[in-house]
Amino acid sequence: MPKPIGPADLPNASVIPDALIAEHRGDVPEALERQHLDALLVFAPSNLRAFIGTPLQPSDRLVCGLIDRTGRVALICPAFEAPTDRELVDGVTVFAWPEHADPYATVAAALRSLGVDRGTVAVDDFMWIGALERLREAVDGITLKRDPGIIEAIRIVKSPAELEAIERAVKVTGSVYDVLPGLIRAGVSEADLLWGANHEMRKRGHPTGQGLFQFGPNAAVPHRPSGSRRLQDGDLIVCDFVVQVGGYFGDLTRTYALGTPPDRARRAYDAVRRARRAAIQALRPGVTCESVDAAARRVIEAAGFGDCFVHRLGHGIGLDIHEPPYLVEGSRRALEAGMVVTVEPGVYIPGQFGVRIEDVVAITPDGCRVLSASVPTDVSTAFV
Amino acid sequence: MPKPIGPADLPNASVIPDALIAEHRGDVPEALERQHLDALLVFAPSNLRAFIGTPLQPSDRLVCGLIDRTGRVALICPAFEAPTDRELVDGVTVFAWPEHADPYATVAAALRSLGVDRGTVAVDDFMWIGALERLREAVDGITLKRDPGIIEAIRIVKSPAELEAIERAVKVTGSVYDVLPGLIRAGVSEADLLWGANHEMRKRGHPTGQGLFQFGPNAAVPHRPSGSRRLQDGDLIVCDFVVQVGGYFGDLTRTYALGTPPDRARRAYDAVRRARRAAIQALRPGVTCESVDAAARRVIEAAGFGDCFVHRLGHGIGLDIHEPPYLVEGSRRALEAGMVVTVEPGVYIPGQFGVRIEDVVAITPDGCRVLSASVPTDVSTAFV
Repeated sequence: MPKPIGPADLPNASVIPDALIAEHRGDVPEALERQHLDALLVFAPSNLRAFIGTPLQPSDRLVCGLIDRTGRVALICPAFEAPTDRELVDGVTVFAWPEHADPYATVAAALRSLGVDRGTVAVDDFMWIGALERLREAVDGITLKRDPGIIEAIRIVKSPAELEAIERAVKVTGSVYDVLPGLIRAGVSEADLLWGANHEMRKRGHPTGQGLFQFGPNAAVPHRPSGSRRLQDGDLIVCDFVVQVGGYFGDLTRTYALGTPPDRARRAYDAVRRARRAAIQALRPGVTCESVDAAARRVIEAAGFGDCFVHRLGHGIGLDIHEPPYLVEGSRRALEAGMVVTVEPGVYIPGQFGVRIEDVVAITPDGCRVLSASVPTDVSTAFV
Repeated sequence: MPKPIGPADLPNASVIPDALIAEHRGDVPEALERQHLDALLVFAPSNLRAFIGTPLQPSDRLVCGLIDRTGRVALICPAFEAPTDRELVDGVTVFAWPEHADPYATVAAALRSLGVDRGTVAVDDFMWIGALERLREAVDGITLKRDPGIIEAIRIVKSPAELEAIERAVKVTGSVYDVLPGLIRAGVSEADLLWGANHEMRKRGHPTGQGLFQFGPNAAVPHRPSGSRRLQDGDLIVCDFVVQVGGYFGDLTRTYALGTPPDRARRAYDAVRRARRAAIQALRPGVTCESVDAAARRVIEAAGFGDCFVHRLGHGIGLDIHEPPYLVEGSRRALEAGMVVTVEPGVYIPGQFGVRIEDVVAITPDGCRVLSASVPTDVSTAFV
């Protein structure tokens, strides 16, 4: 029986199943061997979840995890936050440091206990340089170097169980588009629409999400937070929503309209929808990331909106909202079955409107599968 | 007239006033000169707000800021997120990189444009090692090293205007304790109480906050997220709440009770309240951080709960929730007027209850001032 890593009655949004932690860990020893490395140190919150199974994160207090060549796993964390036996994923030894102790000396002790007292330890890309420098002073005789790509290689291709986990997260994320039509009305503010949507998510027993809900000209700035603008007749409404379920993320966007949008906005919407289709038709193993971006971009260019698609086509998604691979000009990386990416073409006209449609798509041996296919793209009657 | 850095109608929670950005920047050139450094590179979100004035943050897309010895300031950010002239704090030159470009080459170009084509650039502690390595490859001829403490020296002592900003944030944070008594009732869950408290904060026009609301035995784990436990008669209720206002944070905790708490909990509460008083009496310029921690700890030890005060007494607070100085055993740092710290003694009895009272306190030339003095510590009639 897998044990819960967090207290049993907690929302499990950030906790991934034991079986998936074991999958991630399983590939580490051989990769270390191949790269002549003695251990892997993980520091980024998503790597701590992926490989150690802890929701703890580094802050002003050090948290990190270690995996050695024999597959032994250590968690270094503050003593007062140390998981109980009941909360711990099997096989993790906890090295807890009291508040007044030097946490870097505790990492050194953990390495010694794993038998790593010389050699080379790979450190994940997201360790802070201040933390790395302090750790270097503490682990005399051990070389610390940047992970040569072990973590990315393990995380970028999703297993069948991970694909199921992502599909669950996408499904929960998609449910926000069931509730939005009932909340969209003239005069509501962006921030109130977001709050109301999360209120409905809670009522349905779902985790709340991070949203960027933008009206009219505000939607022309893709990452603009939801603010006080009130919805007016003729506004386009961009609703970008992210939910974490069982550790994995869903990330979807749909564009609505109130009343009759300007003709130019309708043309932009149509171009974005056709660009989405072109990208999905292009997605399959062996094609490069940049070629898929180009396939979508060509459609938007042909519609006369080429300068208005100001960002890449999409990003990988999994234990992070944004992770490799990136569907962007210049990326010659070839897609592989099991990779999962967003497809999110957009058109942004400064001072007027924005349009974006975002789906989550898994690469399959034959092509791809749209995990968000059940969320219609013609969500607004204005665009039917 | 200071210009807004963010769009004018956005909630200003993370945006700090222009005058405070100028204060932070003002001290950088002399510090660089003294340390024989040519520029400072900031990467942490709080440093980007403090020195550049941008709410943008590094993600899978690079964002960073530069200040040189003459006080010139550059922001390197994705082109599609670049602030407009109207949104920009005076004196910032924007170096925007398109989606398909190498952002590290753009940092190198920004350095050249500032006249830094050799020499040494200090980098803040929170830059990721992967980003630092890629930047090193891009800035041939320039040495990148960890900031020797310039940022900490500027941020750790707060100016009068910063003290006002923190006091405003503390006041807004404190208002949650006006609404909580109306929401606390048998059967409510931790997560629902937190949601309800934020709903009331919004109704009053305040930003929402991050909360750790914990009932009964759940409160014995200090950082435990709010979950599904329902409030029962006799439970202690720990309510830790953080709100960001104008860029600065407030962070307060009060402990309530439903019905009649166990006698041991009442004794713990009394010890924590007396420890709080002892700490506040000890806080003044010249004393060490560890001596203040010890002053509070002695009271709790004398009451028989010494092993149950499992964390440090407090932390600095400002543009980050936790920042130096730390009131912890082993810290011989002397307090100075203008430093702002939390005082948060606690008692945690595993499986039974937790108690914590947390205030924000500014060190003054004569002693200290409790910025949260208007929030009573006898919030629960059970403890009057």
